[in-house]
Amino acid sequence: MSNKQTDENPWEKKARQADQIKQRMSKIKHKIAIISGKGGVGKSLVTVNLATGLARNGRKGKIAILDADLTGPCIPKMLGLNGRKLDQGPAGIRPSLGLEDIKVVSMAFLLPSDDAPVIWRGPLKMGAIRQFLEEVDWGDLDYLLVDLPPGTGDESLSILQLLPEMDGVIIVTIPSEVSQAVVKKAVTFARKMNVPILGIVENMSGMLCPHCGEIIEVFSRGGGAKVSDEMGVELLGSIPLDPQVSADSDEGIPFIVKHPDSPAAREFTQIITKIENKVD
Amino acid sequence: MSNKQTDENPWEKKARQADQIKQRMSKIKHKIAIISGKGGVGKSLVTVNLATGLARNGRKGKIAILDADLTGPCIPKMLGLNGRKLDQGPAGIRPSLGLEDIKVVSMAFLLPSDDAPVIWRGPLKMGAIRQFLEEVDWGDLDYLLVDLPPGTGDESLSILQLLPEMDGVIIVTIPSEVSQAVVKKAVTFARKMNVPILGIVENMSGMLCPHCGEIIEVFSRGGGAKVSDEMGVELLGSIPLDPQVSADSDEGIPFIVKHPDSPAAREFTQIITKIENKVD
Repeated sequence: MSNKQTDENPWEKKARQADQIKQRMSKIKHKIAIISGKGGVGKSLVTVNLATGLARNGRKGKIAILDADLTGPCIPKMLGLNGRKLDQGPAGIRPSLGLEDIKVVSMAFLLPSDDAPVIWRGPLKMGAIRQFLEEVDWGDLDYLLVDLPPGTGDESLSILQLLPEMDGVIIVTIPSEVSQAVVKKAVTFARKMNVPILGIVENMSGMLCPHCGEIIEVFSRGGGAKVSDEMGVELLGSIPLDPQVSADSDEGIPFIVKHPDSPAAREFTQIITKIENKVD
Repeated sequence: MSNKQTDENPWEKKARQADQIKQRMSKIKHKIAIISGKGGVGKSLVTVNLATGLARNGRKGKIAILDADLTGPCIPKMLGLNGRKLDQGPAGIRPSLGLEDIKVVSMAFLLPSDDAPVIWRGPLKMGAIRQFLEEVDWGDLDYLLVDLPPGTGDESLSILQLLPEMDGVIIVTIPSEVSQAVVKKAVTFARKMNVPILGIVENMSGMLCPHCGEIIEVFSRGGGAKVSDEMGVELLGSIPLDPQVSADSDEGIPFIVKHPDSPAAREFTQIITKIENKVD
């Protein structure tokens, strides 16, 4: 996965890489990163459903996902692309194609098996992310969505430094107070890095009991609205918890496709419209 | 937070640090790390309840938690220690004391505010973890529990390299298939690092509707047992999802203290006994 030119020195190499990334990225209209403070709040779920919704709104083949969670990549599983590999084309590495021809690149495609861990320290991770941006044949895109691992570590820093002209970040959280404390760090992080914050998506926001239909506040309530108020960031919407959503992810089909009439899908459709209006 | 001696060279410094860590750790009977593949599965929840249960079994003041999640530290919030700071004593940095005199050290105690992010690359993280082990006056302990961030990144590598004589790791997961794929990576990671795996704890394993009492499989079912079978690792127990558990965490009181008769607490008590039997 490398095209080193042996006669160049390290500075020339760096400059060539930067040029290459700039050229690849110039063909992509919008770049959005999906971040969170805590893990397990549904970042990848938001990413795959956002990608699918954007693609279905007249952008088939014009949407891509870079799964930048190198140690815990989940995007392929959620899009039914498990076991795929990447191949090399004349213009660079070819992404794998999912539903609606969404282009997907993930560390999962480079690992020998599902249970193989990536045991890398920071500098190697930076190198991998640079290579994904530089050497993948992304083509002409309307949106590149980057799914980042939780927290404010190496992968997030690398992406925000390598893509300075990003449209912004979407921050995903759940309603609990423990989660709120950490999501504020993500807001401050984005501000320190001078990246616009498109808004907060609150996930797992209450659920309807499938047996009796009553509301259950599984992870407390109101956390997204509270962070939105306190930090001055728009709350884009609140997606209810739904056992069917988890089952859809396990099956590799985004819930807005599998269950378009569910409350979760209806709320998510509105979130997509807000994001389109913000960046278009 | 440093006691550099100016006349030593880098090799002497490294040797002194390693000696210091060895000496501190020799006074701790058992060292266990709590890890996961995906984030948000309840690692910190398992850590604070395990610490509290172990302390209540006749070990008051003999249990410590190192919150090694540098970018998303949650332990202080879950033990009601928000806003605490660490001070320096004659024998080193003094941990903050929680319920049952559990000694807690967390990056959260070093940050100016709740919303301040830690924007560090890998090498700085390794340094911070080394300092926590080396310069904290842990004292004589029965158990040191290390809560690691999700995935197989810098913090996990650092801890497993700095504490080679660890009793083992506990792996936390949730039942969904997406989570299973990632938890297998954690199993392989621990094996590659030659650390014993004490077992898997499955969290958010179904919930009882508080209104009608029926079972809801919020995050699918059976994932923990499946991974346990496929990877040959013991399933220590399955903790049901309970809205009260999330509320207890928000209040800073471990659920085994606040709701000792709940199904979650009863299951957790059995998990603690299994862990005690394994390492004692």
